Amino acid sequence: MKTDIITPRRRVFIVSSGSVVGQKEKSGPLGDLFDLSGDDRFGKDTWEKSEAEMQRLALGIALRKGEFTAEQMGALFAGDLINQCISSSYGLLDYKIPFLGLFGACSTCAEGLLMASVYASTYYDRCAAVTSSHFCSAERQFRYPLEYGGQRAPTTQWTVTGSGAFVVSSKTDDIQLNRSVFVPEIAGVLPGRMVDRGITDANNMGAAMAPSAADTLMRFFSAHSPDEFDLIVTGDLGREGSGILVDLLGAHGTDISKNHVDCGTMIYSPDAQDVHAGGSGCGCSAVVLSADILENIKSGKLSDILFIGTGALMNPLSVNQGQTIPGIAHLVHIKGSKVKDI
Amino acid sequence: MKTDIITPRRRVFIVSSGSVVGQKEKSGPLGDLFDLSGDDRFGKDTWEKSEAEMQRLALGIALRKGEFTAEQMGALFAGDLINQCISSSYGLLDYKIPFLGLFGACSTCAEGLLMASVYASTYYDRCAAVTSSHFCSAERQFRYPLEYGGQRAPTTQWTVTGSGAFVVSSKTDDIQLNRSVFVPEIAGVLPGRMVDRGITDANNMGAAMAPSAADTLMRFFSAHSPDEFDLIVTGDLGREGSGILVDLLGAHGTDISKNHVDCGTMIYSPDAQDVHAGGSGCGCSAVVLSADILENIKSGKLSDILFIGTGALMNPLSVNQGQTIPGIAHLVHIKGSKVKDI
Repeated sequence: MKTDIITPRRRVFIVSSGSVVGQKEKSGPLGDLFDLSGDDRFGKDTWEKSEAEMQRLALGIALRKGEFTAEQMGALFAGDLINQCISSSYGLLDYKIPFLGLFGACSTCAEGLLMASVYASTYYDRCAAVTSSHFCSAERQFRYPLEYGGQRAPTTQWTVTGSGAFVVSSKTDDIQLNRSVFVPEIAGVLPGRMVDRGITDANNMGAAMAPSAADTLMRFFSAHSPDEFDLIVTGDLGREGSGILVDLLGAHGTDISKNHVDCGTMIYSPDAQDVHAGGSGCGCSAVVLSADILENIKSGKLSDILFIGTGALMNPLSVNQGQTIPGIAHLVHIKGSKVKDI
Repeated sequence: MKTDIITPRRRVFIVSSGSVVGQKEKSGPLGDLFDLSGDDRFGKDTWEKSEAEMQRLALGIALRKGEFTAEQMGALFAGDLINQCISSSYGLLDYKIPFLGLFGACSTCAEGLLMASVYASTYYDRCAAVTSSHFCSAERQFRYPLEYGGQRAPTTQWTVTGSGAFVVSSKTDDIQLNRSVFVPEIAGVLPGRMVDRGITDANNMGAAMAPSAADTLMRFFSAHSPDEFDLIVTGDLGREGSGILVDLLGAHGTDISKNHVDCGTMIYSPDAQDVHAGGSGCGCSAVVLSADILENIKSGKLSDILFIGTGALMNPLSVNQGQTIPGIAHLVHIKGSKVKDI
């Protein structure tokens, strides 16, 4: 099987990151880990503007934590779920960083890190990647106005109100700013292929995305074994999609049941928070990666992980026109490298 | 002024391209140049499916003309104007090429070529870039249902029904397939920055996009002079935006009035076709570049050009919420290189 894994030519590191979340995420099991939380409005008068504001804040935090200025970024990769990705454009406009817009649905965090590592290991020294989602802007975009109070199916996921930003750098000087023993290094990336297994239920994104995650992982595992990794972290398959992924890989003789976790099942409490199949949205994997996974790599608790962002490539019109929902999954291989050895 | 122009490390060439257009484009001054034209429906029962079908056809033509298979493409970069970029995902699904979704509004053709040249000059040998727009899907997405028959403002542009696909390769073997004296070589690319000059009129995209084109060109001209180029081709500023761009640069002492052309003013006849300020949409610059500009480079009629894709980063909701419309413009420097010298 052809893998096409990209191994960065120059070593690249996630030298800084920032996470911003709303109230429900703050109340969840990872609540204390996020850099900033707000009242979901973030001082704005529309949900779309609130989401854009979260992106602005998240990138600001990532830059500040790494002691960077916007001018030091060669390029900025960003995208979101809202029509024509306006959260990214309005949110990041004022930074004046050369901007390459992405659309990868909920896989955007992984796609952005993939892009940033490709550019920062070749033509630029440093790049930033940002993404977001907002429950209130996504609900009215993809489902119903909040006021409608539509009932949610058991397989439905709850769109995370959150934004994550990352600075990827190949400058070894930048690593010293990392006041930790280990620095997260991007050891490889693998762009996913679109996979469509005929799912038409827009309330079951986990099932639509799991086959693409399986496809990307099978391509990656043609050169690696699942046992090499402390964790295999999928973006936001939720409970439904996670089970399907483990089963799909199991049917190919690949067992990830022992080290697989999913950002969508980590961010909310299944008992205390009424979120059905778990969290979703571009912001979900971005804030969990930034606040939880990367911090565990920096402390040495985790040393080698796979991060697979998963996205469902549909819009409400395509679902109404009876189209099936293809999924996509991009992979980022991150390991903890000892700062003093770099 | 910081330019950040990317000069490919390995020489990269646009070794093949394909263009598909609708009826109005076929009837325009460039009509005979396009690879394929159809009746705007392209055999599908919704406009969105028709647009996706154009992408499928355009990439098929580009692959066939270059005698490539889909498996030979390292990655595929694509995006479009429709919500959540569904024309790209449904249109390109069956090729099973690793897929990196873009959103750059009408700048997507340039963004895709920029991406393809970065990846094909570093980690992959060959990449493809595809984009599209469709008058009928865009009208109901951004303005009114076709049946409404809304009146069009004089500054309004007509969304091109068309799709362009490109294969970018760093393999010198691929160039021999080019049965021409010259091959279009991507000599440099420059990602644009978002620029917002306070335009709120969604019927005047040219004015919203011109300042970003001026910004990108001024950054590029800090290392080059406009006189170096046979043509400076902007994506789809139309008549209104083209005038503004020439004026903006003129105010900075940079004269592009003699060698500037715009794809939006080239594709339709201003007298015989009722298109007001000209053509627009992701497909506009893609089909004009593929069918006209690149062919003139291959024949030696043009030897050194700048291609600047321009996009307006808005959606109908952001306009209704009173937001201004930022623009973005990515630059691709293309020159004709003698095949026998490579």
